[in-house]
Amino acid sequence: MNLASPLDQHRAVASIDPILGLTRADMERVNALILSMAGSNVELIPEIAEHLISSGGKRLRPILTIAAALAFGYEGEGHVKLAASVEFLHTATLLHDDVVDESDLRRGRKTARTIWGNQASVLVGDYLLGQAFKMMVEVGSMRALAILSNASAVIAEGEVWQLSAAKRLTTTEADYMAVIGAKTAALFAAAAEVGPVIAGAGAPMEAAMRDYGLHLGLAFQLVDDVLDYGGSASDLGKNVGDDFREGKITLPVILAHQAGDEAERAFWRGAMEEGRSDDAALAEARLLFDRHGSLEATKARAREHGRLAAQALGALPPSPYRDALEDVVAFSVERIR
Amino acid sequence: MNLASPLDQHRAVASIDPILGLTRADMERVNALILSMAGSNVELIPEIAEHLISSGGKRLRPILTIAAALAFGYEGEGHVKLAASVEFLHTATLLHDDVVDESDLRRGRKTARTIWGNQASVLVGDYLLGQAFKMMVEVGSMRALAILSNASAVIAEGEVWQLSAAKRLTTTEADYMAVIGAKTAALFAAAAEVGPVIAGAGAPMEAAMRDYGLHLGLAFQLVDDVLDYGGSASDLGKNVGDDFREGKITLPVILAHQAGDEAERAFWRGAMEEGRSDDAALAEARLLFDRHGSLEATKARAREHGRLAAQALGALPPSPYRDALEDVVAFSVERIR
Repeated sequence: MNLASPLDQHRAVASIDPILGLTRADMERVNALILSMAGSNVELIPEIAEHLISSGGKRLRPILTIAAALAFGYEGEGHVKLAASVEFLHTATLLHDDVVDESDLRRGRKTARTIWGNQASVLVGDYLLGQAFKMMVEVGSMRALAILSNASAVIAEGEVWQLSAAKRLTTTEADYMAVIGAKTAALFAAAAEVGPVIAGAGAPMEAAMRDYGLHLGLAFQLVDDVLDYGGSASDLGKNVGDDFREGKITLPVILAHQAGDEAERAFWRGAMEEGRSDDAALAEARLLFDRHGSLEATKARAREHGRLAAQALGALPPSPYRDALEDVVAFSVERIR
Repeated sequence: MNLASPLDQHRAVASIDPILGLTRADMERVNALILSMAGSNVELIPEIAEHLISSGGKRLRPILTIAAALAFGYEGEGHVKLAASVEFLHTATLLHDDVVDESDLRRGRKTARTIWGNQASVLVGDYLLGQAFKMMVEVGSMRALAILSNASAVIAEGEVWQLSAAKRLTTTEADYMAVIGAKTAALFAAAAEVGPVIAGAGAPMEAAMRDYGLHLGLAFQLVDDVLDYGGSASDLGKNVGDDFREGKITLPVILAHQAGDEAERAFWRGAMEEGRSDDAALAEARLLFDRHGSLEATKARAREHGRLAAQALGALPPSPYRDALEDVVAFSVERIR
């Protein structure tokens, strides 16, 4: 059986409906647990948590945890708690990220920090981290705890690294991949790996699911990087060009800067480092991407990681879960077809 | 490294020398582990960690963990890792606290946020939290993990609560005690409780050490509140009146405000809420404390919690550790004699 192609030939358009259907019942319990664990007598906490929870994210990470446990026949309760922990780790990261990036909008809505201030965002993020670890402890799997606590340190390390070094235009592609590996893919990998861990599926299945999550996360981030220069606001919940206006160095920019002549590099410095990033500059950036094929090159990398994610699934026994997980990859990568 | 506070040098009565002596060998390993776990290839992380680690704190919390394990004959390696985790949880809290409080100085030194910025302080705090959980997981005690992860959520909840409600002058004494119970005493309690937990000393000893840590932490914070209006800068590493100038509502202020007439309440509103907190206002605040016995009343509460901490130790079998832990209480409370 050839699982190597993420763009499955016998399905016209990949969909996330299969994975949503397979995980729906358990995800309802995850959502209920999230609401209850985000509760507190301290008024600000449920207020901010509710804002985040209702913000319409796809909950892709906890869905991975649920599917990755069910794919190996898991029948306990632990996957619901681990999935909620994964979402809390992610939410805490978003809260702190928005403070660090001084972001005003996320998915088209005001960020918590613009409504309640940076202070509340920092502290509620800390609270959600603490609640995440409490839930993980309740599951009682030391391996799952090790995987998720390690991911949480790696994510923060990636963020600090991005702060100190990766905001430079001279960031290499390898460095950039390391940063998104830490910031984005590490949590996808951990979310997927803990499924077979609590299901007792054995080391090869754990490794397969970790690889799946890692490459899916990398593909996912690269697709986002491309869409920021080409999608519509409704796809992303943010406006086209947000990364550009915020001076965020993503792979298309790195590639275009690298391939550019001296005048082009001066343009990129002005845009990314000195804030000359109005609509005319955005149009110019897109011209330069076209000239050097930077968006196409980024898409190619995304497809390659999608291929590796699908390939990792080849180690799994056939099941509706395996097919649905493969569809997630195809769906993610097809966004940039 | 001299861990002794400048205060204990001429002290005839209670001293922290016994506990420092009993824990010295293990604390050297804790310090080595802290340095190694604060390491990272990401340049900013060891820089900031080094700044915090060399800042001359007494490391009282990890000392409690070491002593509380040794007091019950613990012979493994886990206490060193748990002690380092406890210090990381504390350090991460300080980093985030300084961002939230916009503090420029801590223990007489510039805070990390004034040197490296709020962004780095938030993210390095997150990194240390992640590293703390990694170390806890390595120890392999689910009970210790539950206790420490719970403390970490409680601390953050207390911080949020302080942010939203407890900055009001109308905060009650009970509310204030709940906040410092969460912000300060919860980590003291957890630090002390995990000792008997990993030593397998049984539930009654765990409860005794948790109570000891809780009341020690409460006494410790109340003493700090008093010293802020009466100690010297070298005692505290901060200047007398720092809490006052920052508009920080502590127990002496709550008690004086409560007992004050309308004119006095107007003074407190001006000082704490509208920033009229120059040296003349500080002198006025001290007069009002004298009029209503607010510092004396706070000292009485501190002594009562010190008594309860010492009483909790009564459940332990006699040992040099028990005596040394009792000295810690006496030393803490004697700072305000």
